[in-house]
Amino acid sequence: MPVLVMKFGGTSVATLDRIRRAAKRVGVEVAKGYDVIVIVSAMSGETNKLVGFVEETSPLFDAREYDAVVSSGENVTAGLMALTLQEMDVPARSWQGWQVPVRTSDAHASARIEEIPPENITAKFAEGMKVAVVAGFQGISPEGRITTLGRGGSDTTAVAFAAAFGAERCDIYTDVDGVYTTDPRICEKARKLDRIAFEEMLELASLGAKVLQTRSVELAMRYKVRLRVLSSFEEQSDEAGTLVCDEEDIMESNVVAGVAHSRDEAKMTLVSVADRPGIAAAIFSPLAEAGVNVDMIVQNISEDGRTDMTFSCPTNQVARAEKALAAARDEGVINFAEVLADTGVCKISVVGIGMRSHAGVAAKMFKVLADEGINIQVITTSEIKISVLVERKYMELAVQALHDAFELDKAG
Amino acid sequence: MPVLVMKFGGTSVATLDRIRRAAKRVGVEVAKGYDVIVIVSAMSGETNKLVGFVEETSPLFDAREYDAVVSSGENVTAGLMALTLQEMDVPARSWQGWQVPVRTSDAHASARIEEIPPENITAKFAEGMKVAVVAGFQGISPEGRITTLGRGGSDTTAVAFAAAFGAERCDIYTDVDGVYTTDPRICEKARKLDRIAFEEMLELASLGAKVLQTRSVELAMRYKVRLRVLSSFEEQSDEAGTLVCDEEDIMESNVVAGVAHSRDEAKMTLVSVADRPGIAAAIFSPLAEAGVNVDMIVQNISEDGRTDMTFSCPTNQVARAEKALAAARDEGVINFAEVLADTGVCKISVVGIGMRSHAGVAAKMFKVLADEGINIQVITTSEIKISVLVERKYMELAVQALHDAFELDKAG
Repeated sequence: MPVLVMKFGGTSVATLDRIRRAAKRVGVEVAKGYDVIVIVSAMSGETNKLVGFVEETSPLFDAREYDAVVSSGENVTAGLMALTLQEMDVPARSWQGWQVPVRTSDAHASARIEEIPPENITAKFAEGMKVAVVAGFQGISPEGRITTLGRGGSDTTAVAFAAAFGAERCDIYTDVDGVYTTDPRICEKARKLDRIAFEEMLELASLGAKVLQTRSVELAMRYKVRLRVLSSFEEQSDEAGTLVCDEEDIMESNVVAGVAHSRDEAKMTLVSVADRPGIAAAIFSPLAEAGVNVDMIVQNISEDGRTDMTFSCPTNQVARAEKALAAARDEGVINFAEVLADTGVCKISVVGIGMRSHAGVAAKMFKVLADEGINIQVITTSEIKISVLVERKYMELAVQALHDAFELDKAG
Repeated sequence: MPVLVMKFGGTSVATLDRIRRAAKRVGVEVAKGYDVIVIVSAMSGETNKLVGFVEETSPLFDAREYDAVVSSGENVTAGLMALTLQEMDVPARSWQGWQVPVRTSDAHASARIEEIPPENITAKFAEGMKVAVVAGFQGISPEGRITTLGRGGSDTTAVAFAAAFGAERCDIYTDVDGVYTTDPRICEKARKLDRIAFEEMLELASLGAKVLQTRSVELAMRYKVRLRVLSSFEEQSDEAGTLVCDEEDIMESNVVAGVAHSRDEAKMTLVSVADRPGIAAAIFSPLAEAGVNVDMIVQNISEDGRTDMTFSCPTNQVARAEKALAAARDEGVINFAEVLADTGVCKISVVGIGMRSHAGVAAKMFKVLADEGINIQVITTSEIKISVLVERKYMELAVQALHDAFELDKAG
């Protein structure tokens, strides 16, 4: 039997009614003759509740215990989905990560999937089971402890299963009906894209357009997984949603494919750092070891042999970053006057593979923001994207102005 | 190091503050030199929520999926307790049932613990871990699926760990400060007992006095586990609470030790059953196979070769019982006119090892109820208890009247 992977995110399984609706979609695919692997997230809000418990209990938590706690929401949904399918007379059972097993690295709270042996589930398919419901987001470390893959990790689980089982397609059901030119919740002119290139999707995902987790897109690109994003709240055809695909399969040709934003950014500045060769490594190695995901980095012009170093990281890693930097200073590895943390910023990015062959995108972006009176604090660029940090209060305004300026409401 | 087992029930870990309070108690015992095994329940209300989800999804649920869902609450508490202890600089880690592993039978939703190999946890104690926090109520079947032990199963987990590790004592922390002559919530004259015999405790537990799960007391009796019930909401000395112990260690000598009640009872009657040899087996074998816990059984006087058969079972098993009986009728195993289910009853019991040598306890009980105008629907007796089913609206009245009549507010 051909295998199909279907992933349902938190809002798609937020209530028992929604689980039933998702199960009906699964039933449709089973009726077409697929063996289906369903990947489920926790019911909407559950994981946030659990993360809140952990952070309140222990701000600098042991990530192994964090994983043991926050992985539990997916187990609940997996069991409930299996029960719902059984009620519809579809043979189904649930699998927790360690039961498959989903083998991961031991990087707790942001583990990487290393191997998914298909034997256990394939044996059950051979016995007549039609649907394996797998708890997303979780796995098991070499030591036998529970790991999680980082927020949104269920997308990665889905793509990894699609690769491991040679699935015909990996359908990601979510609360939007595809990938948009920007977040429709903050820009009503946002337009759904029929197709988007893996590389653009990667930038959008990493920039905070929360449709798909970055690693899931990387994995899909590497293993040639046909990845489709579609809504769990509408009747769907085989052509619904947005297909994430190779660049050459894209017909549209807008220079900019989309505008992304990320609210969850903090700007940190090390004031008066000795400017010497190796200083960047001395600063960012301890941060990496502490598990801080540094994103943008800017080094100011040096004066009198000292400089300021600015970087951005997720807001919830500020305490961890401060601790790692203080420890590095105590050990004499680095020297600085103080650390400033600004959690009132956001990141705005424009993304498009067309930028490679079109000059002037950056200049246009800066002018649009300037015309709106928005001050740019930090800039980074890559081949197909330009990102800026601005005050968070300007987020909606910046996104809407850029969407208009690049005419993203019109197909290219 | 001597090992101590400490179990905290749902109300004792209902909030992060309460988890902190419980962790402080654990810290006190660690400071005394114990290696501590902490068994935790789900935060108060969580398991009920999950059971509600399962029952709404699938009234006649697959018990394997039920277990996968309802076991998740304990995992959350175990991780949070480990984090809390770490914050207090007590070396601790969490263990889920399958990680220990707690090996159980495959009787899902009411599995029995078969083996707890101590090696994994003992090795961690040898490495300097002081507290193993274990998710109660759950284990793993021979097939590798998650099992649960039935409601209140965390008590059984605690006693089984105490037996497996040769613990010096098993302290059950709960929301009451010991075992009472009756439920203090419905009878304000209820009095705490300093000691109670294993056998009396067994009857009280099985009769719905929800301080300890029946099997936990059975296990403690068999393995000579020193079992103590005490409050997690008060400062405690080594002599606090109620010690559950051998009959010969009891100094008090009331004829009746306590009055128990169970709200969660349903009375079922099979009307017009053919009265022939083997009919009881024909009725109750299918019920047992369907996992219905039949408690009291009464057979009426036979007329014209037909009789009525009445039995009681937990309210939430009525649907299952009806289904099993209908199936047995369809298969021609039994024959009856109809099944009546009355879920408006409750069970009241008086318990005491002194009954063995004192006549007239039953007569006195019936008279007390008659004087209050309470009609008795079903009666069963054993060597040390008398139980009756009455209308649920009389529950508080019956308990209070019996408590007064047997003078349980006064030590014997």
